[in-house]
Amino acid sequence: MAKTPPKIQIIPLGGLGEIGKNMTVIRYGDDIIVIDCGLMFPEDDMPGIDLVIPDITYLLENRDFVRAIILTHGHEDHIGALPYVLKQLNVPVYGTRLTLGILGGKLKENNVAKADLIPVQPGDRVQLGVFQVGFIRVNHSIPDSVAISVKTPVGTIVHTGDFKFDQTPVDGKEKVTDFHRLADLGDQGVLALLADSTNSDRTGFTISERTVGMHFDEVFHHARDRIIIASFSSNVHRIQQAIDTARKYKRKVAIIGHSMQSIVNIALELGYLTIEDGLLIDIDAIGKYPSAAVVILTTGSQGEPMASLTRMAMSDHKKVEIVPGDTVIISATPIPGNEKMVSRTIDFLFRQGAEVVYDRESGIHVSGHASQEELKLMHNLIRPKFFIPLHGEYRHLKKHAKLAQDLGTPKENIFVAENGHVIELSRDKGAITSKVTAGRVLVDGLGVGDVGNIVLRDRKQLSQDGILVVVLTIDKKRGCLVAGPDIVSRGFVYVRESEQLMEEAKEKVNQALEKCELNSGTEWAMIKTSVRDMLGKYLYEKTRRRPMILPIIMEV
Amino acid sequence: MAKTPPKIQIIPLGGLGEIGKNMTVIRYGDDIIVIDCGLMFPEDDMPGIDLVIPDITYLLENRDFVRAIILTHGHEDHIGALPYVLKQLNVPVYGTRLTLGILGGKLKENNVAKADLIPVQPGDRVQLGVFQVGFIRVNHSIPDSVAISVKTPVGTIVHTGDFKFDQTPVDGKEKVTDFHRLADLGDQGVLALLADSTNSDRTGFTISERTVGMHFDEVFHHARDRIIIASFSSNVHRIQQAIDTARKYKRKVAIIGHSMQSIVNIALELGYLTIEDGLLIDIDAIGKYPSAAVVILTTGSQGEPMASLTRMAMSDHKKVEIVPGDTVIISATPIPGNEKMVSRTIDFLFRQGAEVVYDRESGIHVSGHASQEELKLMHNLIRPKFFIPLHGEYRHLKKHAKLAQDLGTPKENIFVAENGHVIELSRDKGAITSKVTAGRVLVDGLGVGDVGNIVLRDRKQLSQDGILVVVLTIDKKRGCLVAGPDIVSRGFVYVRESEQLMEEAKEKVNQALEKCELNSGTEWAMIKTSVRDMLGKYLYEKTRRRPMILPIIMEV
Repeated sequence: MAKTPPKIQIIPLGGLGEIGKNMTVIRYGDDIIVIDCGLMFPEDDMPGIDLVIPDITYLLENRDFVRAIILTHGHEDHIGALPYVLKQLNVPVYGTRLTLGILGGKLKENNVAKADLIPVQPGDRVQLGVFQVGFIRVNHSIPDSVAISVKTPVGTIVHTGDFKFDQTPVDGKEKVTDFHRLADLGDQGVLALLADSTNSDRTGFTISERTVGMHFDEVFHHARDRIIIASFSSNVHRIQQAIDTARKYKRKVAIIGHSMQSIVNIALELGYLTIEDGLLIDIDAIGKYPSAAVVILTTGSQGEPMASLTRMAMSDHKKVEIVPGDTVIISATPIPGNEKMVSRTIDFLFRQGAEVVYDRESGIHVSGHASQEELKLMHNLIRPKFFIPLHGEYRHLKKHAKLAQDLGTPKENIFVAENGHVIELSRDKGAITSKVTAGRVLVDGLGVGDVGNIVLRDRKQLSQDGILVVVLTIDKKRGCLVAGPDIVSRGFVYVRESEQLMEEAKEKVNQALEKCELNSGTEWAMIKTSVRDMLGKYLYEKTRRRPMILPIIMEV
Repeated sequence: MAKTPPKIQIIPLGGLGEIGKNMTVIRYGDDIIVIDCGLMFPEDDMPGIDLVIPDITYLLENRDFVRAIILTHGHEDHIGALPYVLKQLNVPVYGTRLTLGILGGKLKENNVAKADLIPVQPGDRVQLGVFQVGFIRVNHSIPDSVAISVKTPVGTIVHTGDFKFDQTPVDGKEKVTDFHRLADLGDQGVLALLADSTNSDRTGFTISERTVGMHFDEVFHHARDRIIIASFSSNVHRIQQAIDTARKYKRKVAIIGHSMQSIVNIALELGYLTIEDGLLIDIDAIGKYPSAAVVILTTGSQGEPMASLTRMAMSDHKKVEIVPGDTVIISATPIPGNEKMVSRTIDFLFRQGAEVVYDRESGIHVSGHASQEELKLMHNLIRPKFFIPLHGEYRHLKKHAKLAQDLGTPKENIFVAENGHVIELSRDKGAITSKVTAGRVLVDGLGVGDVGNIVLRDRKQLSQDGILVVVLTIDKKRGCLVAGPDIVSRGFVYVRESEQLMEEAKEKVNQALEKCELNSGTEWAMIKTSVRDMLGKYLYEKTRRRPMILPIIMEV
């Protein structure tokens, strides 16, 4: 390192080959900055897990070099790990005002008292170690989103954050993506582009957020009774459009759901949301207005079991009951994995007599991520030497790499990497040179990282066929059974209907014990193995199931 | 019943408010026929369950009146419950040749030796008790599909089965839906239409299966190396088109996957599939041909963990390894709930270096169900007095009902019913008059119906936070503890990293015992409750988790 000038290292710690827990490290010598620090929601194969955060071992090992964490926007998959990470690594956090507003709420909820949050505005530049970091306005499904430019001794790096090019943003002309700054950077020469790949398999352009407002208008025009709109609470522009449409149709608006209320309050306070005096009403007051004069804004667009809309659908909400005549707009598409939950919610709403507007074709939702033509424009504006696709499942990264190649970036200058890969760039050459610790840390209740693969494997086995606990009390000195075997099962069969099976199972355990020739010298481990094997085999033959078998020996 | 002439009863036992386990009962006096007898794949909230079949209590209670089971086509959700149902209710089964061919294979695999399978052809009519049952050719994603007409003393009932109107079916002009027969029935007057609602929320017409062949052609044209096609094994027309395209491009075809091989054999034997001599090769022989001369047809289009394509993607298949240059066509869309599994398979295929053709827009899959314009045509051909939407989630039934109403069927003549509802029709009037037993029976391994809600609830709890087993050995006479408390946990935490927690947990159990003032009169149930409460509370405070706590008391 001393002889050759240090190269730039780019190390994704999350967000590659997955949607979520975005986190990218940029390192030059003894200076490190981190872009984003997100969480991921658990996959199907992580039962009981609440959320997943990146493994930051690498940063903890290099804690003295970490100058700051920079945030691109306020979505969970970009800021959601901070309440956990800041407890271990308290460094300054830079972000735009709305981003830090939302983060502040989360830190408070998680009892993180001390955090050094430094607000910036699009257009600002800050010096962090050797790095000059710039914030560039982009459009996304949350206001105040920025791309990040990082001037380094080797060259400039541009990280797009999540973006789309919305030519008619809801918040006005001056909030269009800063094309001029991007063009300027491209003119000056960019070493590497790191870019959002979420929609890299979609052709064309992503539709403007503004069109959703037009579709709201259409639904409002036809609705005779109450209107209930479920959306992502962080989509402040969507909320603004719902509120504007409500005003136009002389309806009052009630807001329900913890995250919706919390983000509306922050957005109002910071001026990202404009609501006419008297338009908002308390949810308890909706009964005072005719149904044709009410709009309810709520969470639950993903069918989450505890969210307000889901509870309304299940007739389990304290304050709102769905009645025939209600029109429900689900202004979101299901995040992959949530399809069934959303579909169930829609069905229950229909059963309660509501009209539900939900499908993609109805135009009541648009994506916040750039489609192929926008990605091409970004590449052509930035004209980078090297390209690293970020933020996407493997197929998205691959398609984005292909797109860059089609635009003329040489294959050897494109790096489809994995989390933990160290991509080293000099002015002329790049390579993946090594790998640092990276992965997922599971959060379950108050436990961070105390559930791992063995615990998950056990949970999965338990969920498939349940458990049989076999208890034996053995007199150690005499080497004989003094109580048991007792068998208790959970999640296996209805015991009452399977008495014979359980009797025979006990018999099998006795046979296993006989085989072990129980005496004062017998090893408990041998008994356990024998019980597990014989009973397991018997149960599989009889039921074709493989419950967990847990032999417990008590010594007296 | 004796005085007024008996009415027709229509009783759906499955398929309403769900996709799967289709089964409809038609009853007039002492004559019952059953249309279809399908299974459903388990939902997310049924861990460990293999499949779900309809509850046939009603049929068993009326077994002497059941004249036959009539099948519309050979899909699992229409025939898959028969291996279980025929063991309890051995009645004649009518179906077309391919349907019975596929069923025969399933019965054999499930050791159902005696079954009275009676083949029919589209156009046939059979008398079953008072009913004259007719079979009418329709198009669907499996050949030999039929709609059913049932002449009854009250009027004619038409059950569409699963259908689409394919104007250019793969198997030729004479296999177009029998529009003339449907028109004829409509002319004579139809009492009730029972119709497929799967795609009732899709506008327009469903695209012809034939177009998939054109898209295969395009992919074959560009592929330089091996082509691997995954599809539903029962889509014989899709397989035919893959084979025809292979022949055109001078490629040999190898077939892999149990269900794919089995259906190809049946379809070949019965003449539903035409393959030129020498075109098929054994999977072990693919190495003998250049990669540009090979096509592999496989199962796994749904990302099922054990299917061939999934194993190939995971580098876990014995005979086929995915290599760069391979083109994989996933000729199917994910069934709701399978999205994540399919997406994971696609990602792994990309990681192995394959090119994957998968998205809806690529045209390599079309639906087998009628969209709105086809449904309208069906309604206008049949012109029924009453309408009962079948085969769909609740929202599909509701949309289909709306469509019928828009076409002029009076609202009071449309019945959006639930499984088990008895819909009684006279010539003039209809009503839902009562409810019979209906529901789901869970199949888990060899057990049919021995897993119910309590077992499922336990499995779910076990999967969320695991289990702690607390064992105490107590001297009953003296009323004192002689061994334990021992605590064993599974699926809760890494025990090694949580030694202190487990020590304190043991302490809590001891406190619970002290509180019970253990003596010879103490009731075990009270001890158990006390242990469960105190330990549960302690663990929730410390971890925010609620593992199952299972106290076991051994008496010596």
